Amino acid sequence: MLPPVHPQTLADVSEDDLLALIFPSLPTNDSVLVGPGDDTAQLATGSGAVLATTDAMVLGRDWRDEWSTGEDVGRKCVAQNVADIAAMGGVTTGLLITLVAAPETNVAWVQSFTKGLVAAAGEIGVAVLGGDLSSAPAGVRMISVTALGETEVPVVHRSGATPGDVIAFAGSLGRSAAGLELLQRGTPDLAPELVAYHCRPRAAYEQGPVAARCGATAMLDLSDGLVRDLGRIAKASGVRAQLDGAALAPFVEALATAVGEEARACVLTGGEEHSLLATFPDRGAVPEGWHVLGTVGEGAGVVLDGELQHGGGWDHFAG
Amino acid sequence: MLPPVHPQTLADVSEDDLLALIFPSLPTNDSVLVGPGDDTAQLATGSGAVLATTDAMVLGRDWRDEWSTGEDVGRKCVAQNVADIAAMGGVTTGLLITLVAAPETNVAWVQSFTKGLVAAAGEIGVAVLGGDLSSAPAGVRMISVTALGETEVPVVHRSGATPGDVIAFAGSLGRSAAGLELLQRGTPDLAPELVAYHCRPRAAYEQGPVAARCGATAMLDLSDGLVRDLGRIAKASGVRAQLDGAALAPFVEALATAVGEEARACVLTGGEEHSLLATFPDRGAVPEGWHVLGTVGEGAGVVLDGELQHGGGWDHFAG
Repeated sequence: MLPPVHPQTLADVSEDDLLALIFPSLPTNDSVLVGPGDDTAQLATGSGAVLATTDAMVLGRDWRDEWSTGEDVGRKCVAQNVADIAAMGGVTTGLLITLVAAPETNVAWVQSFTKGLVAAAGEIGVAVLGGDLSSAPAGVRMISVTALGETEVPVVHRSGATPGDVIAFAGSLGRSAAGLELLQRGTPDLAPELVAYHCRPRAAYEQGPVAARCGATAMLDLSDGLVRDLGRIAKASGVRAQLDGAALAPFVEALATAVGEEARACVLTGGEEHSLLATFPDRGAVPEGWHVLGTVGEGAGVVLDGELQHGGGWDHFAG
Repeated sequence: MLPPVHPQTLADVSEDDLLALIFPSLPTNDSVLVGPGDDTAQLATGSGAVLATTDAMVLGRDWRDEWSTGEDVGRKCVAQNVADIAAMGGVTTGLLITLVAAPETNVAWVQSFTKGLVAAAGEIGVAVLGGDLSSAPAGVRMISVTALGETEVPVVHRSGATPGDVIAFAGSLGRSAAGLELLQRGTPDLAPELVAYHCRPRAAYEQGPVAARCGATAMLDLSDGLVRDLGRIAKASGVRAQLDGAALAPFVEALATAVGEEARACVLTGGEEHSLLATFPDRGAVPEGWHVLGTVGEGAGVVLDGELQHGGGWDHFAG
């Protein structure tokens, strides 16, 4: 093969390709109970264990100052990390926060961010353990959060789904994407509650440990869209995920008044919802408050009423 | 007081001022064994406990691509986080890595970065547990690392120094700053070993647990300069740190050939050295390989041969 004319950049590869380049070489040791590739890692700590996950937010990519206050960003960065701990069946106990910001950043923004962070963490009993502050080039602001947690039951991986299992979720579908759609259209007043959910998601964290105790066989939180995230369970478990259109219909319908034709895409591929998606051995095991969306079968990929669904959802680098 | 004419920005306040604005409000809970303000936090995990710290590196602020390869950056981000765990008396067991990079970033750079990360972690038995990838605006690249660790002895805080203690360090002084100085002068060939230390510091991590077992009363790693970091121990402990010029002289002398008059500033205020600085109850308690630099007295601040030293070292936001 001829060498490429220009060096390959991140814009030329998908996030998954890049992860595949990085993951095989990562060092491990005897303390690692769960390594890379799940919602969180788990590390032995003497006689105990800690769940650990990290997630970043970048100005202009993950939020815009016109649409989100500092307080919103503070709340959102808590939500997305705590949801990852919940998706293993765990409870978050502490957070580390890194703020990298350009010198022209207003102190008032940092105070507003801290207010949201403190409120979101405090409401669910999570401690802020510390962090790091660093300056950035003009125009740049980003947050990196690490959440630490624990679980009283064995963790729920993405890889445990088997044919015959039932697919269900706790929380909402497509609300964050619908809220973003309204902001992009300039019509946030059509459904302020959807816009509020986009800016300040609040996932059903407490349902993570509930699902684990009820015997969930696989679980994750909806970060990048239902089809894409369900595809991750299907791939990790070596199964086919079969969505039932009739079960999804009420959730599409609920968004139709606000975003019309886009409602279906919001439900199937909308990211940043942070609801919990899990598989259970049978309908009887599905906890109260969870919504059944389909079943697990033999094969691969995600199908909706028998039709294979492709990709969708968010990729950080794909052009 | 009249309101300010323009909103206050991060350029108008010091890092310490900003931290003081943020810290008092942070939520805590019963799991927090060590909270914000030390080298790491410590969180209870069932019957065990985990040390946790986070540190970021930003292109153009913490490294330049002309001077540091991806591999250098990968090694350095491991070193600075592992040094923080060591400074509590702990051993690092796992790392979480977040890479936020502009789409024009070369895949080859990411591979080089991963190589350095994997090598530095692997050499000291540290696992890479996972992380996060995110895209950034053009020209932006940054790394955020969280290190998790454990300790078999009680952690060593910054606040335990008392009058009569002896001040000592393990590792080197001013080498990173001298290496940076040579890069800035365009004469790296004058002392390639100093430039190498700047780009790929390798602190005396294993001396952290040694110092803890020998009864160190306070400890931290040299991130922001000897005077500034020693001032942190002095402030946290409510004591005066008394440096002995004769004890520092050999370390200044060792850099004089390479950087001339700047050698003294490198030793006193050079950052990113990541050597361990500690106080011990008496000279007999100072472990082998540690260098005594002075004593702890009554009062406040840092003095050198009786003369009060002011500030110096690195502040992220100060104009």
